[in-house]
Amino acid sequence: MSRNLLLISTSTTHGTGYLEHAEQEVRSLLEGKSSVLFIPYARPGGISHKDYTAKAREAFEQWGISVTGVHEYDDPVKAVNEAEAVFIGGGNTFVLLRNLYASKLIKPLQERVQKGMPYMGTSAGTNVAGKTIGTTNDMPIVHAKTFDALQLVPFNINPHYLDPIEGSTHMGETRETRIAEFHHHNRQPVVGLREGSMLRVKGDKIELLGPLTARIFLQSQKPMEFKPGDDIAFLMEAY
Amino acid sequence: MSRNLLLISTSTTHGTGYLEHAEQEVRSLLEGKSSVLFIPYARPGGISHKDYTAKAREAFEQWGISVTGVHEYDDPVKAVNEAEAVFIGGGNTFVLLRNLYASKLIKPLQERVQKGMPYMGTSAGTNVAGKTIGTTNDMPIVHAKTFDALQLVPFNINPHYLDPIEGSTHMGETRETRIAEFHHHNRQPVVGLREGSMLRVKGDKIELLGPLTARIFLQSQKPMEFKPGDDIAFLMEAY
Repeated sequence: MSRNLLLISTSTTHGTGYLEHAEQEVRSLLEGKSSVLFIPYARPGGISHKDYTAKAREAFEQWGISVTGVHEYDDPVKAVNEAEAVFIGGGNTFVLLRNLYASKLIKPLQERVQKGMPYMGTSAGTNVAGKTIGTTNDMPIVHAKTFDALQLVPFNINPHYLDPIEGSTHMGETRETRIAEFHHHNRQPVVGLREGSMLRVKGDKIELLGPLTARIFLQSQKPMEFKPGDDIAFLMEAY
Repeated sequence: MSRNLLLISTSTTHGTGYLEHAEQEVRSLLEGKSSVLFIPYARPGGISHKDYTAKAREAFEQWGISVTGVHEYDDPVKAVNEAEAVFIGGGNTFVLLRNLYASKLIKPLQERVQKGMPYMGTSAGTNVAGKTIGTTNDMPIVHAKTFDALQLVPFNINPHYLDPIEGSTHMGETRETRIAEFHHHNRQPVVGLREGSMLRVKGDKIELLGPLTARIFLQSQKPMEFKPGDDIAFLMEAY
């Protein structure tokens, strides 16, 4: 498989502009491309497809890359089939996945990615690149007929991964507890991707990028921390 | 409708034991009853039905009320139909709702509640008393064929409601933002029930109990704070 993926935890880190912290990695992913198809389905804060696409366009135009929103096409499948690259932005993961199915984009995206089309995601767009959306942080504000996602990689991702807050008096579950519960019902690995971190996948090779470590959860094992540069190839062999 | 409900945000507040902060309200709900049927389906932390029931039993036995777990019966529907009162404990809301449907308990619970059987819930058990589970904080670790819940009340509940953390550098959505997104797709009111708060419903009357205010979200309106004793009857007229 000639996958070429950039899976970003968050579009915006504290104190930096939209996609700013990932500029180098985004430009490297899209080297030689002049356009990207943006999928605005996740609608963060409920904004319109048009407004969300304008936001993405503003960032990419600085880098000489033009952006079209998939909603601008009569035939979204054709849009994906003809795209040079695809970017799925963050927002609500349930709304996103539901719309990917409703627009019949799951298979076309899988096929194009398999043949090497660059794919990038932020937050919900990174979550749906995994096996299922079962490790999203989002509220289930709309129903999705299945939680099976794009499965561009054979594991799950928890974007915006958050460490337990020391001294917290809140009784809601920590992120780590939630992922442990996930592993009572599911076997695939989960990558807790902190804000500022990215996964770069080329073919069967995977690399952690950004300044932080990532927390990786395997069923029935203690969570492990991996630094950028560490060998995390086992993730690509998950089933 | 002769509803008799106690909907508790969390079983355990910081620094108190299991159900301790709600003891007075639980005993008042169950006045004159000698047993309660416990539904342990939400399995917090993945614990077994047996262990979870033992935990509930320990609390109720101090108050002279016996507890049986619904999993101890061959026929869970019959168990609900013959129960003096039902308590659904917290854990994962998706796991809970899926099991309520799988065990065909939705309708029997609705019918018994309608006829006045006392119902209490904590956390996920409070969430499923609402219209849908669309405002749960939990991870979707298993799929549910619908998010429609028990609809014992005509609004949604967000248990463990959390105010934005001042000075936080985390870019994930606040609870308030998530609920605003919910209202882009759904019209029913949402009650943000802080840890320590409870809703007491008798017939068509509703009351906020506990030491804190609750944050109530109506579609297209600014969130509002209500104190215990305030008139929140409009919640029962939602559709």
